[in-house]
Amino acid sequence: MIDSRISLAHGNGGRFMRELIEELFAAHLGNPGLDVQADAVRIALPPGDVMFTTDGFTVQPLEFPGGNIGSLAVHGTVNDLSVSGADPLYLSLNVFIEEGLEVALLERVIRAVAAAAEEASVRVVAGDTKVVRRGEAAGLYLATTGIGVRPAGLELGLGRIGAGDRLLVSGPVGDHGTAVMLAREEFGMRGDLASDAASVHPLTRAVRDLPGLRFMRDPTRGGLATVAHEICRATGLGLRLDETAIPVRDPVRSVCEILGYDPMYLACEGRVVAAVAADRADEALARWRALPSGRDAAIIGEVRAEAPRVVLHTELGGQRILEELEDDPLPRIC
Amino acid sequence: MIDSRISLAHGNGGRFMRELIEELFAAHLGNPGLDVQADAVRIALPPGDVMFTTDGFTVQPLEFPGGNIGSLAVHGTVNDLSVSGADPLYLSLNVFIEEGLEVALLERVIRAVAAAAEEASVRVVAGDTKVVRRGEAAGLYLATTGIGVRPAGLELGLGRIGAGDRLLVSGPVGDHGTAVMLAREEFGMRGDLASDAASVHPLTRAVRDLPGLRFMRDPTRGGLATVAHEICRATGLGLRLDETAIPVRDPVRSVCEILGYDPMYLACEGRVVAAVAADRADEALARWRALPSGRDAAIIGEVRAEAPRVVLHTELGGQRILEELEDDPLPRIC
Repeated sequence: MIDSRISLAHGNGGRFMRELIEELFAAHLGNPGLDVQADAVRIALPPGDVMFTTDGFTVQPLEFPGGNIGSLAVHGTVNDLSVSGADPLYLSLNVFIEEGLEVALLERVIRAVAAAAEEASVRVVAGDTKVVRRGEAAGLYLATTGIGVRPAGLELGLGRIGAGDRLLVSGPVGDHGTAVMLAREEFGMRGDLASDAASVHPLTRAVRDLPGLRFMRDPTRGGLATVAHEICRATGLGLRLDETAIPVRDPVRSVCEILGYDPMYLACEGRVVAAVAADRADEALARWRALPSGRDAAIIGEVRAEAPRVVLHTELGGQRILEELEDDPLPRIC
Repeated sequence: MIDSRISLAHGNGGRFMRELIEELFAAHLGNPGLDVQADAVRIALPPGDVMFTTDGFTVQPLEFPGGNIGSLAVHGTVNDLSVSGADPLYLSLNVFIEEGLEVALLERVIRAVAAAAEEASVRVVAGDTKVVRRGEAAGLYLATTGIGVRPAGLELGLGRIGAGDRLLVSGPVGDHGTAVMLAREEFGMRGDLASDAASVHPLTRAVRDLPGLRFMRDPTRGGLATVAHEICRATGLGLRLDETAIPVRDPVRSVCEILGYDPMYLACEGRVVAAVAADRADEALARWRALPSGRDAAIIGEVRAEAPRVVLHTELGGQRILEELEDDPLPRIC
């Protein structure tokens, strides 16, 4: 039986590590593809273009309203595959565990990995565990690497965006950043906000075959403003965003006003930003709004043949330049 | 220009992070497949069975004779693919960096990643960077995830091992563990030992088509003794090892005697253990010995229809049971 707290011996390649892997990881993630005895696992891939991505997770606290680092690690990589146009299929999971971590917490995280993977129809087929000294790793870091397959010939990318294209977002921005921030004791605030962390695969699958779809991205670290900057930098074009059109939940707006944050820069973990040809924007919007996760989708801006900067047109008729993020307002959000 | 030390802002998704990625990671790892702007990258795969694996790296110190955490992270995952019978093709790289790490050290590590990847003919096509607070991550943790392709129908595994099969090792054991140990100031010893860390792909490719090849594994954490235990546990058979046949370098033996370590349990990072049908063992040995990295290869034992334990037959005619590793003699070795 494994103890109630993780010790360094759980990472040494011997009996304790084997028991931890068998009783915890394999028990929850177990599937025909997860062979904890093998050095590498064989994966079957359907026809199409094979897509590959990876992401690391160091969120603090490890658990927050709407999820934990485990579900976040699955959603994050599932979403990177999804916005590339792929169907996510397989994940690997790296776990860096701090000596002394409660096994019960680790188990909640691994359960959340399993639940999020099942919901997104991906399988965790490879993994590795390292245990590090007390004081390192802030409890737990994760990394997930994903493989998916997208329809052959589907081409999406920043380079395909042109002047006149419309920008859409699939739902309210800033929920994840705000929920994690409120879960930190340092802020002394509690709200009923939950992270938006979820698979965006239903959203991306709904529009990926739409002619005129140029590019999709999930606005995580640095939020919507950072995706907007990436578009300007890659295209050399300007971007006009309409502040009144950008969906922001009231509690997110209130918390941001009190604490001095700008929701444009806060991370989402279950939203998609898409650039779509002007004459297809309404159809993309309709497809998203037909889905539960897209019912608050909106057309929020337009790419313009102007200097490459992000201009926010405000409610009162003014203009505000959204600068590129420098200092991080909210570190360790994912 | 990036500063001389990593700050938290290098991990926030904004300008500092972009500059770090462009000036350091992309500059060294840059290749047609590494698109630092994309959420996921398309990879081309030749025909065959697709193999997938992942590993995390927390070695201390970060640099040691014969390598650093970067080269180790490439070799480790290349080797897990290789012993499965595959040709390693693609890697992803996760980097967890401690705030305050010297950029010069990080650059040496990334250069080593690039050099080891080139040597092994794999391409680093996806990556992610996280910066964590001072005091966490002991400077740097890495994770690498690999994709390879092996000849269709090639089947290797613990389950294929039977009584009478011979066990081979491709070279001396314990070099990596000893070299890293000596690099720790706490031991106050210096030697001319270097880690054996290297790609084992030439070794595995040389024998993977040999009829009678049952199983290959690289003896990393827990060393040769741990692979031996894995064979006994999976097969329910006994394993007899011949101590005089197991290659151990003299300086490794000396250091182990002085400090009280057993080289059977020390990590290798560039060796292969193989189980081969008795009538093919000589041919496997000859193929390995024809390679520079296999010139000290040896047949070291035999699987026997006995109780599932590892019995070491010693130089003096005695027998010693090699127990399963419990406490880790040398943590943070990989």
